[in-house]
Amino acid sequence: MEKERETLQAWKERVGQELDQVVAFWMEHSHDQEHGGFFTCLGRDGQVYDDLKYVWLQARQVWMYCRLYRKLERFRHPELLDSAKAGGEFLLRYARVAPPGKKCAFVLTRDGRPVKVQRTIFSECFYTMAMNELWRVTGEVRYQRDGRAVLENVSEDGKELSGCLGRHQNPGEEQGGLRATQGEASAQPWVLGFDVGSRCGLPSSLYLPHRQRSRDRPLRWGHQQQESESGTDWEGQLSAGELRAVSTVREGRRHCGQCRGLGPHAPGRICCLPYSEPSPGHALEAGWFLLRHATRKGDPELRAHVIDKFLLLPFHSGWDPDHGGLFYFQDADGLCPTQLEWAMKLWWPHSEAMIAFLMGYSDSGDPALLHLFYLVAEYTFRQFRDPEFGEWFGYLSREGKVALTIKGGPFKGCFHVPRCLAMCEEMLGALLSRLASAPAPGAPSPPAVPDRKGAE
Amino acid sequence: MEKERETLQAWKERVGQELDQVVAFWMEHSHDQEHGGFFTCLGRDGQVYDDLKYVWLQARQVWMYCRLYRKLERFRHPELLDSAKAGGEFLLRYARVAPPGKKCAFVLTRDGRPVKVQRTIFSECFYTMAMNELWRVTGEVRYQRDGRAVLENVSEDGKELSGCLGRHQNPGEEQGGLRATQGEASAQPWVLGFDVGSRCGLPSSLYLPHRQRSRDRPLRWGHQQQESESGTDWEGQLSAGELRAVSTVREGRRHCGQCRGLGPHAPGRICCLPYSEPSPGHALEAGWFLLRHATRKGDPELRAHVIDKFLLLPFHSGWDPDHGGLFYFQDADGLCPTQLEWAMKLWWPHSEAMIAFLMGYSDSGDPALLHLFYLVAEYTFRQFRDPEFGEWFGYLSREGKVALTIKGGPFKGCFHVPRCLAMCEEMLGALLSRLASAPAPGAPSPPAVPDRKGAE
Repeated sequence: MEKERETLQAWKERVGQELDQVVAFWMEHSHDQEHGGFFTCLGRDGQVYDDLKYVWLQARQVWMYCRLYRKLERFRHPELLDSAKAGGEFLLRYARVAPPGKKCAFVLTRDGRPVKVQRTIFSECFYTMAMNELWRVTGEVRYQRDGRAVLENVSEDGKELSGCLGRHQNPGEEQGGLRATQGEASAQPWVLGFDVGSRCGLPSSLYLPHRQRSRDRPLRWGHQQQESESGTDWEGQLSAGELRAVSTVREGRRHCGQCRGLGPHAPGRICCLPYSEPSPGHALEAGWFLLRHATRKGDPELRAHVIDKFLLLPFHSGWDPDHGGLFYFQDADGLCPTQLEWAMKLWWPHSEAMIAFLMGYSDSGDPALLHLFYLVAEYTFRQFRDPEFGEWFGYLSREGKVALTIKGGPFKGCFHVPRCLAMCEEMLGALLSRLASAPAPGAPSPPAVPDRKGAE
Repeated sequence: MEKERETLQAWKERVGQELDQVVAFWMEHSHDQEHGGFFTCLGRDGQVYDDLKYVWLQARQVWMYCRLYRKLERFRHPELLDSAKAGGEFLLRYARVAPPGKKCAFVLTRDGRPVKVQRTIFSECFYTMAMNELWRVTGEVRYQRDGRAVLENVSEDGKELSGCLGRHQNPGEEQGGLRATQGEASAQPWVLGFDVGSRCGLPSSLYLPHRQRSRDRPLRWGHQQQESESGTDWEGQLSAGELRAVSTVREGRRHCGQCRGLGPHAPGRICCLPYSEPSPGHALEAGWFLLRHATRKGDPELRAHVIDKFLLLPFHSGWDPDHGGLFYFQDADGLCPTQLEWAMKLWWPHSEAMIAFLMGYSDSGDPALLHLFYLVAEYTFRQFRDPEFGEWFGYLSREGKVALTIKGGPFKGCFHVPRCLAMCEEMLGALLSRLASAPAPGAPSPPAVPDRKGAE
């Protein structure tokens, strides 16, 4: 007990110090004082190597700053809030391609001119999440109004988004069985349902997959997580039957994201979960989304299933036995993946794994999950941290050598690392509190379904 | 002289034997006797791991078979021609998404249903090249008619192709200076101008970049390469001034494929040539396209410039000094590229480099280029060949370890390897003939601008 307490305490301190250093890195290097918004293409030492502004990362940094400000006392200082607001203003002014249209660009020039627009809805989703957090922190309804407008547009009519949820269905994409396991279109209901929906606390009717939504259902908006409404709650539907069905992908059945049948197609054989992209990292990330859902629902059976299929399975099949670390992509039959980077070790699957295993332990009390947290966290801190300049490297070779020296790029910004560290610090604190109030040494583990409202 | 002859002869035999084995690999493993077309997703031993049919590769295999049949006596057997025709019929029947529309799919199910359609025009270009070759081999005008219809549609009105040549211009994509160095849109005039135009022998008026074309110019079609028409010939325009201008990218100036300005953006700093994608391999591939152009034009100044900027420069900056092989992507300032696979060694830049250096030597007689051909060819045969099962591995780690064991995939089919081997065999034969008819031992190198009509 005392040993466990000490180890938890040591990790809490390590994680907290790392969070301070990571936030300091972004505060120092990423703020564009001239045009607003954030530079995210930063070299090893923080130098800007590209001033393009990727909308995903602009929005995620706003979200992250607001979260830190709201959730951790030591980050409740005006500089962080002002920076979040400045980032929000940049998005409000420039992210939409052709205002008053609601479609957001993928990448902008430094001064806010759109450079590239994707058919997907990720920019819009991250935009909405940023606005939702700004509204929560400041109470200013204009953020709420704006985020709502963009999300309503995405989820309701999709008229501007011809290539995503409402896109043309090709004859070779079969409808049968589950929805796609891979590809742009398939990840969109996922991000909409879990990332945007549950993080923003939107009513589920607003973020149901487009095709499942009733056309005559009025849109609503709220900041309280609402409980499921029979027949319309996507998470609810998932937990009932689909969730178990989709995990069969990992048990040997194939489901193809290309033809959407059960053909012998490489995309469908990739080890992953459906509703997301094909990698152990995505499975683990989805795992902790689902763990939170199981806790909210008070569903221990679902929790056990998620731990089994979305935490342990991706770890056991995805952890490199030779060099450590999680592979980026895998094939369910052990064949060679077709992604060039399949064996590389990326930072974010590891940060998601840290969250997932610590949350799994917090929820279940199973010491095997705590052991996995320590194992992943040790690897991650050893391989990805840069003690010299701060922040983490993002991309290692299979053997663990730094392959790209950048600290930020088109897809790596101020998001996964600080989110992981903040959540882990909070969970470690909660575990230590529980240990402190434990009835007696040697007593059984703490309750399996604790209050983890504060986890994110 | 005798030593040079022996080495050339040895390489001619080595390359010829390799070509036989590679063609045998595809003949044995890739033909779909049931539905027609070709399997291209083949594992190390040739086993089909995915039966999806990628249209680029279907068309390229048809093209390759026709070329081998037309150009090399020992491949003039009915089986090869019948296979090319069967592939052509599959394309004719299924490649178009919604006939009589001209837009081609990117990937089809095994039985020909479209799975994915890209906004780019590559499928259409490769389709046209396949039909053009079938027409040349068989004399059947229906192939000509069909290929022409698809290409006219691409190059003329672009109405179906909203996302490519005729796509919306975002305000952040500046018009000033050169056209883009990178990105989907920028590679399209390139493939249209060089790959389709010059390989199919189309009149230049048909493959001019969309925006440069005169709307009232009637489309024409022919199988003879036509000489430049003042003011409309794209290659001609390129050779005059633009070509020298674009090479400044490699000399330190930056041009961004994102904003199209000269901003400090990573995409514009990538070592490459404009009009193509950012890699030494693309530069070298474009190099031999341009060498052929210089020979046709009888322009030794252009040839010297191309050898300098499109052959030697990409080699000297792109060859890995530690492990050998060409990097896949680079940054002009020596910064870290943002492509995850930047340091990997891919098969096709090496096959293109073999062609480029051997052609450069054939055209110029400069022994340094022959030396580079030997160096690249030795590396390539040692690292990429698979003596056990035939064909080449496609994807190695920076250190030269096989990273993906597949022999074919969504982007690797029966194209780059046999094209390289066939062209090198032919060029080596021509060099040997020249040596045999050389005036006397010790005489200067053969003429600098030989007849190389037969090179491809």
